[in-house]
Amino acid sequence: MSSVFNFSAGPSTLPEAVLQKARDELLDWHDSGMSVIEMSHRGKAFVSIAKKTESDLRELLNIADNYKILFLQGGATSQFAMVPMNLVSDKNCANYVCTGAWSQKAIAEAKRFCDVHIVSSSAQGAFSSIPLEDTWNIDADGAYLHYTSNETIGGVEFQFVPNSKDMPLVVDMSSNILSRPIDINKFGLIYAGAQKNIGPSGITVVIVREDLIEKTLSGTPSMFDYRQHAESESMLNTPPTFNWYLLGLVLEWIKAEGGLESMERRNKNQSDKLYSAIDDSSLYANPVKRSCRSRMNIPFTLAGESLDEKFLSDAEDEGFVGLKGHRLVGGVRASLYNAMPDEAVDELIAFMVEFERIYG
Amino acid sequence: MSSVFNFSAGPSTLPEAVLQKARDELLDWHDSGMSVIEMSHRGKAFVSIAKKTESDLRELLNIADNYKILFLQGGATSQFAMVPMNLVSDKNCANYVCTGAWSQKAIAEAKRFCDVHIVSSSAQGAFSSIPLEDTWNIDADGAYLHYTSNETIGGVEFQFVPNSKDMPLVVDMSSNILSRPIDINKFGLIYAGAQKNIGPSGITVVIVREDLIEKTLSGTPSMFDYRQHAESESMLNTPPTFNWYLLGLVLEWIKAEGGLESMERRNKNQSDKLYSAIDDSSLYANPVKRSCRSRMNIPFTLAGESLDEKFLSDAEDEGFVGLKGHRLVGGVRASLYNAMPDEAVDELIAFMVEFERIYG
Repeated sequence: MSSVFNFSAGPSTLPEAVLQKARDELLDWHDSGMSVIEMSHRGKAFVSIAKKTESDLRELLNIADNYKILFLQGGATSQFAMVPMNLVSDKNCANYVCTGAWSQKAIAEAKRFCDVHIVSSSAQGAFSSIPLEDTWNIDADGAYLHYTSNETIGGVEFQFVPNSKDMPLVVDMSSNILSRPIDINKFGLIYAGAQKNIGPSGITVVIVREDLIEKTLSGTPSMFDYRQHAESESMLNTPPTFNWYLLGLVLEWIKAEGGLESMERRNKNQSDKLYSAIDDSSLYANPVKRSCRSRMNIPFTLAGESLDEKFLSDAEDEGFVGLKGHRLVGGVRASLYNAMPDEAVDELIAFMVEFERIYG
Repeated sequence: MSSVFNFSAGPSTLPEAVLQKARDELLDWHDSGMSVIEMSHRGKAFVSIAKKTESDLRELLNIADNYKILFLQGGATSQFAMVPMNLVSDKNCANYVCTGAWSQKAIAEAKRFCDVHIVSSSAQGAFSSIPLEDTWNIDADGAYLHYTSNETIGGVEFQFVPNSKDMPLVVDMSSNILSRPIDINKFGLIYAGAQKNIGPSGITVVIVREDLIEKTLSGTPSMFDYRQHAESESMLNTPPTFNWYLLGLVLEWIKAEGGLESMERRNKNQSDKLYSAIDDSSLYANPVKRSCRSRMNIPFTLAGESLDEKFLSDAEDEGFVGLKGHRLVGGVRASLYNAMPDEAVDELIAFMVEFERIYG
């Protein structure tokens, strides 16, 4: 077992079993005589790893054949540009829902490539809720509707999939992909940096309905062209091979743990417990509307900044790391991704209760 | 020791000591209780790894303070676009030397963003030499002069640094960076995917003179903007943390092995031996002009395609892997990057001699 509990928002805790497997085969993968890190990406061994990763992801999310799965570099920040560069086409406009800091970043980048129509925003309410869907104002001329399914900084999460009717629905699922079952067929494009729920940093998954990737804007670099990546099976150039392999190990672990239903049960159970501990206390507070609370990232504050600092410092002494809130908002944040053990949440809650007993 | 000798062109052999260290600390880096893979990129532990990597690279290449070092994603293929997008500015033209398949790729991508002036090309001679510098025709209106210091497919390598006078000199050094000492001050910008001489795939080093990164072309994605990466110390978004760490371990290994002079001696010695074995035989042939031969990638052919196949298949049975020539040119290719042990080259030569005795 790890000697600390790591609540970082990403990169973040990986399953112990995944790390052990990676360690055990680091110098010699399956009697190949080589480390995965050393293998040619075009050799049989690595190609088998790449294909297994894709088929496991297809199985876990029940992804139909008319969707391509791409394994790319550059994180969600690259996707903020790639989405409009590939999907806007002749429309010159796209719809965005704004629910927090990551939506804002996606919007700012999209504005470099097209007109952005803000469908709805919760900025006025300090991003403490998701705007009700029946108040949204979608521009019918937009090429797609984009939203951020979980905001890691504000700690708000969509508990529903928006109804975009015939318009392609695009989602930044970086921080809650594979945390529950979803109906892929509702989406035009899903993207996710791996470093939260599904692997290491340095690899990004894109799941895209094939008919949507037709034509890029002029001036789009080849590396930002989904079609070129799709045609070369994500080997347009040398992919991040070890990252891809680690992502594959995490998918195998999720399957072995019972798949997405099992992840959802665990995530719901852990986050319910932590929210209850916060709501039942008079020291801790979470500002998010209950129906919009994230199961992944749980921000909370104490009675003042100096007490936040004391809490973080004492927590670290006790082996709870990565609890500092994002520098934009401060406070405390516990990120509970798929790999977080129940024990970590139970021990954090026990620590919070004791801290409140002394300082509350 | 590895049970095979891996001559892949990249990803490629890493030093055994690096892999062992990565394995030994994979679950717990320096008593942090965490794997490097799990660490927040903004936490003290990872920031110390990142800074150490940068300072080791600065030391090894003797890089002055007016150069920024960036650790990016996307490989050389992203750089093919980033270079013109960031350096062309108002010039609208750039100079390229064409010495092989990688030059051609850089040129094709640059053409999406500016006029490309071909200074000189060895295409007519099947890329078997580097055109003499005094025959080059540089367009004085070009924003920079770009060349590829080593062509991994053709096996030709610059044994000199071009004189670009006052024009910024840009080089794709992916396949021979850190294989010998160089005078950084002759360059405006150096880029290199790490997966050949200095680490795993998924991370790319850019060394750029700070005054050159001023203004990007309109429509440049934020992730393709050197200035933004420089200002955020390569943490514009979550970097590929484990790749960065591994690159750092390789730099530490190079220092421990005696630095770039030592790498150069080893590379020269190994490649001299292999070229001699080829030239002394009547079965093997290398088509490259002697003064332009690569120390990194040594392509050769046998007396016909079927014998090439037999050679590759017998070699693999004996534990020599990754020797297949690039699919564009066929034949055999031995890549001898920094981490290649002398023993591997000696044993390969012994195998070649024995193969010639039987089939020659």
